[in-house]
Amino acid sequence: MNKIISLLMLHMLCLAPAAAQFGGPRVDESTLPGKRGELNVRNAMYPRILPDNRVEFKIKAPDAKKVQVDLGKKYDLTRNADGEWTGTTEPVMSGFNYYALFIDDVRVADPAAESFYGSGWMSSGIEIPYPAGVTDFYIADVPHGDIRMKRYFSATAGDWRKMYIYCPPGYDASKESYPVLYLQHGGGEDERGWAQQGRTDVIMDNLIAKGQAVPMLIVMTDGNTRDFEASLLKECIPFVEKNFRVKTDRESRALAGLSMGGIHTLNVGIPHPELFAYLGVFSSGWWANASPFGGGGNDNEKYYTMLKEKKELYNKQFKQLWLSMGGKEDIAYNNCQVMMKRFDEIGIKYTYFDTPGGHTWPVWRESLLKFAPLLFK
Amino acid sequence: MNKIISLLMLHMLCLAPAAAQFGGPRVDESTLPGKRGELNVRNAMYPRILPDNRVEFKIKAPDAKKVQVDLGKKYDLTRNADGEWTGTTEPVMSGFNYYALFIDDVRVADPAAESFYGSGWMSSGIEIPYPAGVTDFYIADVPHGDIRMKRYFSATAGDWRKMYIYCPPGYDASKESYPVLYLQHGGGEDERGWAQQGRTDVIMDNLIAKGQAVPMLIVMTDGNTRDFEASLLKECIPFVEKNFRVKTDRESRALAGLSMGGIHTLNVGIPHPELFAYLGVFSSGWWANASPFGGGGNDNEKYYTMLKEKKELYNKQFKQLWLSMGGKEDIAYNNCQVMMKRFDEIGIKYTYFDTPGGHTWPVWRESLLKFAPLLFK
Repeated sequence: MNKIISLLMLHMLCLAPAAAQFGGPRVDESTLPGKRGELNVRNAMYPRILPDNRVEFKIKAPDAKKVQVDLGKKYDLTRNADGEWTGTTEPVMSGFNYYALFIDDVRVADPAAESFYGSGWMSSGIEIPYPAGVTDFYIADVPHGDIRMKRYFSATAGDWRKMYIYCPPGYDASKESYPVLYLQHGGGEDERGWAQQGRTDVIMDNLIAKGQAVPMLIVMTDGNTRDFEASLLKECIPFVEKNFRVKTDRESRALAGLSMGGIHTLNVGIPHPELFAYLGVFSSGWWANASPFGGGGNDNEKYYTMLKEKKELYNKQFKQLWLSMGGKEDIAYNNCQVMMKRFDEIGIKYTYFDTPGGHTWPVWRESLLKFAPLLFK
Repeated sequence: MNKIISLLMLHMLCLAPAAAQFGGPRVDESTLPGKRGELNVRNAMYPRILPDNRVEFKIKAPDAKKVQVDLGKKYDLTRNADGEWTGTTEPVMSGFNYYALFIDDVRVADPAAESFYGSGWMSSGIEIPYPAGVTDFYIADVPHGDIRMKRYFSATAGDWRKMYIYCPPGYDASKESYPVLYLQHGGGEDERGWAQQGRTDVIMDNLIAKGQAVPMLIVMTDGNTRDFEASLLKECIPFVEKNFRVKTDRESRALAGLSMGGIHTLNVGIPHPELFAYLGVFSSGWWANASPFGGGGNDNEKYYTMLKEKKELYNKQFKQLWLSMGGKEDIAYNNCQVMMKRFDEIGIKYTYFDTPGGHTWPVWRESLLKFAPLLFK
């Protein structure tokens, strides 16, 4: 009986199954290539990251006919005699990358890794080391702010939602009021994206410690709603201004977002220059053509008309209309190019920042790193 | 080119793949049985919960040989002509339940559901409705506290860790100091467990609104560390008492945990009656026999000796030594029974609460619901 209880307790404490599935804590890691992914779950020895940022996978699936890894590109893994499927990818970009396994053509998350809400499901994530000397995206021994999860009822969405709010170091001890950046995730993501995939608190703690960014709150809301403008202006901003010590003038308010969040930023920020002095549009831009979700194409003309009619006001009032792009390989590149051409024709001033990497989180982390220092100065 | 961009953007916004994989937002839900699981990812029509709390699954896996659902019990799904695997479970217990899929015998999370860190991996979770009239575990229109994610460097663990801190409604506006409950997760879980699976903030907001619990902070730390006593006493408690307005006397400090966290609670709480006036031990108890992780068996005699030698002090100083159990089907039942027998022999006073459900989150939510009202009065 005692033995049975022991085994049950062992199972309950969940080390045994994890060990079996993931190659186990009893494996001598020094015998394995590279190092464990930092987003591997506890005890997971694979995936492993090799010195040149290639990633080695080993997945136990004796009865599967086919196992693949999708890291933007799909890789077929090879079955060994133990029923483990192994393979090594090409070098992967530094920073956070989504990935998935395909087991007999079913897309699933890797049981060996942490999951992150992206592409509309809980996708696997892998963190590839940054080159030596790049410290902006790593936790450092500096004063740390925190991220607060607050629940609120959204009448526009008709349900309870969560808002994530980054508060800078010293917020609680201080008496002063802070400026606010409202920062939106992309399509298929939610309020967790910037906090988890984006490492917003780490980036901001580091920038503030170096004096490169002013202490600010960063509000991350759920942009998956029928009426984003109403949810932001009628619900989120009033909620934040009621519950936090924040400045409420337009010079102390910024709005930014990536991909779908960039379109949210344009669609709310352009009609409301009285509310925001800074706009950040990461890997986005109005649809150059009709959007498959409605809008886009000619629907954008109303915004261009606003910009034309009050060109001087926009150029005077926007302290930043800041556009970033992940290079030509970014799937939003064309939309952004078309939009900038229209801005040029109208005579609207903007800043354009381009960094290689495509439509990915490394590009969006880099965008926040470059955008935040421009705010509220 | 525009068309290609559209398709790419469509893919980027991630609605199409989700729709295809999950049965899609375009499905007329009124034609489907029951209702979507509330932890389904956006657009996932399955799993669906039937009125009697049976769960219906439908998973697209045309090329799989075998698909199973493991909800404590394993269910074989049946393949239909469209390559979808379907099946219905027996009625499932109300509240949060971990589950997994097995695709050709590989344990994976359900791509249609949110994932939760438990059993040492990102497991799927399903929330089964509570009976009509049970409102304790649902968000209500009452004042809400928040949960704060704070990073700190743990010298005892040798890495950066996260601590989750529930702050009650009114904490920021108030000047007063609050009592603190340190609340530990179980084996294979981490600091996220009580915040996510446990709905700690929802339970506490509701109790406080009804005047059934006093406003308190609840600190959820990562118990996966080589020296839990040192991490709690030398790192976590000092960190909390430095960064939050909390009372620091023993009468204002409680320690509780579930399963492995219950053992942590006993192993730190019994040697330190000068630090804690309340102990809560949920679905746990010292190993009745030698523990597979070291300790247990005779190693517990030192604690029983402490209890014997200072019986009067313990009985006087512990305002609660509170034990809860998920019925005889709880895998910790035997250990707890043996421990209570020893308490009785020594003459140590304790409170025992038993609720059916086994070694599960519904039992632990119920335990917090019953334990929190006993604190700091």
